[in-house]
Amino acid sequence: MIAVDWGSSSLRAWRLNAAGAIVDTRRADLGALGHGAATSALLADALQGWDDTELLLCGMVGARGGWSEAPYLPCPATPAALAQALQEVPTQGTALQGRRARIVPGVRGGSQALPDVMRGEETQIVGLLSQCPDAAQVCLPGTHSKWVSLQAGAIAGVHTAMTGESYALYRQHSMLARSMPPTSEPEVFDAEVFAAGVRRSGEPGGLLHHLFGVRTLGLFDRLAPAQAPAYLSGLLIGHEVRAQLPLRAPVHLIGGPTLGARYRQAFDLLGIDSHLHGEDLAACGLFHLTR
Amino acid sequence: MIAVDWGSSSLRAWRLNAAGAIVDTRRADLGALGHGAATSALLADALQGWDDTELLLCGMVGARGGWSEAPYLPCPATPAALAQALQEVPTQGTALQGRRARIVPGVRGGSQALPDVMRGEETQIVGLLSQCPDAAQVCLPGTHSKWVSLQAGAIAGVHTAMTGESYALYRQHSMLARSMPPTSEPEVFDAEVFAAGVRRSGEPGGLLHHLFGVRTLGLFDRLAPAQAPAYLSGLLIGHEVRAQLPLRAPVHLIGGPTLGARYRQAFDLLGIDSHLHGEDLAACGLFHLTR
Repeated sequence: MIAVDWGSSSLRAWRLNAAGAIVDTRRADLGALGHGAATSALLADALQGWDDTELLLCGMVGARGGWSEAPYLPCPATPAALAQALQEVPTQGTALQGRRARIVPGVRGGSQALPDVMRGEETQIVGLLSQCPDAAQVCLPGTHSKWVSLQAGAIAGVHTAMTGESYALYRQHSMLARSMPPTSEPEVFDAEVFAAGVRRSGEPGGLLHHLFGVRTLGLFDRLAPAQAPAYLSGLLIGHEVRAQLPLRAPVHLIGGPTLGARYRQAFDLLGIDSHLHGEDLAACGLFHLTR
Repeated sequence: MIAVDWGSSSLRAWRLNAAGAIVDTRRADLGALGHGAATSALLADALQGWDDTELLLCGMVGARGGWSEAPYLPCPATPAALAQALQEVPTQGTALQGRRARIVPGVRGGSQALPDVMRGEETQIVGLLSQCPDAAQVCLPGTHSKWVSLQAGAIAGVHTAMTGESYALYRQHSMLARSMPPTSEPEVFDAEVFAAGVRRSGEPGGLLHHLFGVRTLGLFDRLAPAQAPAYLSGLLIGHEVRAQLPLRAPVHLIGGPTLGARYRQAFDLLGIDSHLHGEDLAACGLFHLTR
């Protein structure tokens, strides 16, 4: 089968054998939204040469504006319920004719008055649950970090924090950018300075005040321009994690190595046990949903 | 005399009579930074027709990159200490020849390790103290809101929150902008929705999570696009104000009528007594510093 995690900015595809092992991998800088009827041709293109008939997709490809909207499944959502709610997309008369394509629905948590949602992360969590059935707390850092609580093998709650996007906003568009090197220069990550930001996030004053510290520390030569991005990152990740306390450790962290290492460092500083899992959990989750 | 509050984006000038009453007012969209030696000519232009010899300026005009850097005065800073530290700028050989120009220094608070600063607001506070000598807590909302504590007639502490700038960032550059009308359309302020944002800011989850609610509330039709900016504003101002609790009421609020009304509403919702003062306090403060 072919497993695809198609998000708002990129597509990742895995070719899996009958036992669920990854035999090939692809990646494209192709977002899932806004392609309309051309979506199936783009997908066929991305998968060229892989002739498996079974396609299972997760991520924003199932959002409004994606290939076909797969309504959110409410919490608590079990892997079995997700598997039952897979949404088939007709392929007849398209570039994918003769193949079966299905999309995993997103999951909706929060309250009726204040909903929260995810798309794609639920599938990584299915993969995680197949390996760690007792997992209780998951953190998926990113542009919009997802914090997911699990109970008895079901997704019990979803909680989003705009951490990655906020970092990019302040790094590129705010007055703080003037205290930092241009984004075109390669960044050297300073773990000490990152830790100072995480510690600062625990002091009084609030995030909006702590952010201004990036400027004043620069103004008084307490922070070099090259260090400022790591401090900003520490402030934001520190605020994100502290707002989740108390956590049910160990926290299962799902993400790439760079961001994963930063969050692990933040968890260590806060005395919280964590395990880092790779993003290939999506392939594992997609495989489990077809069984 | 001529009193000038020259900040990073605009210049405001007042012509005062010998009793300190305002006899004329000007405003220009002219920032104080980066003009180098051309600054005096620009200022002479802005003041054309006002031939008073005494000029007193406050704001970013005294910052690094302004007309002439006036070093920060440390806290506690009294009006008398500010008056003694006025920095004279030579005008001989410039368009301002024959006039005396002086700049009010900014004030530096915070700790040695984590300084905080203001430039211009200290002069508004001098004006406030001349009218309300017992004032203890001041809030000056804006791009970078200043929270200033006063003790025995001196500026005892400064604390900055990047509230206004954060609003502009999320309103214009973030994914949340897609849930709102274009900024080119006139905004209708919805006080009920603003209040909902302020209330939400007091719930668990943190600012980075609350911000994402602007999107999910829109996604599930709980918040119309035209209402989203007021909700965002309520979230940010609510977080700013709550981070300052407990406050020594009444809070003396110094600002324009639009932002002033929002902050007053936020203080009311939190049960904090506040008084709103206009921005002309700068003229009053500049007058008092010359006496």
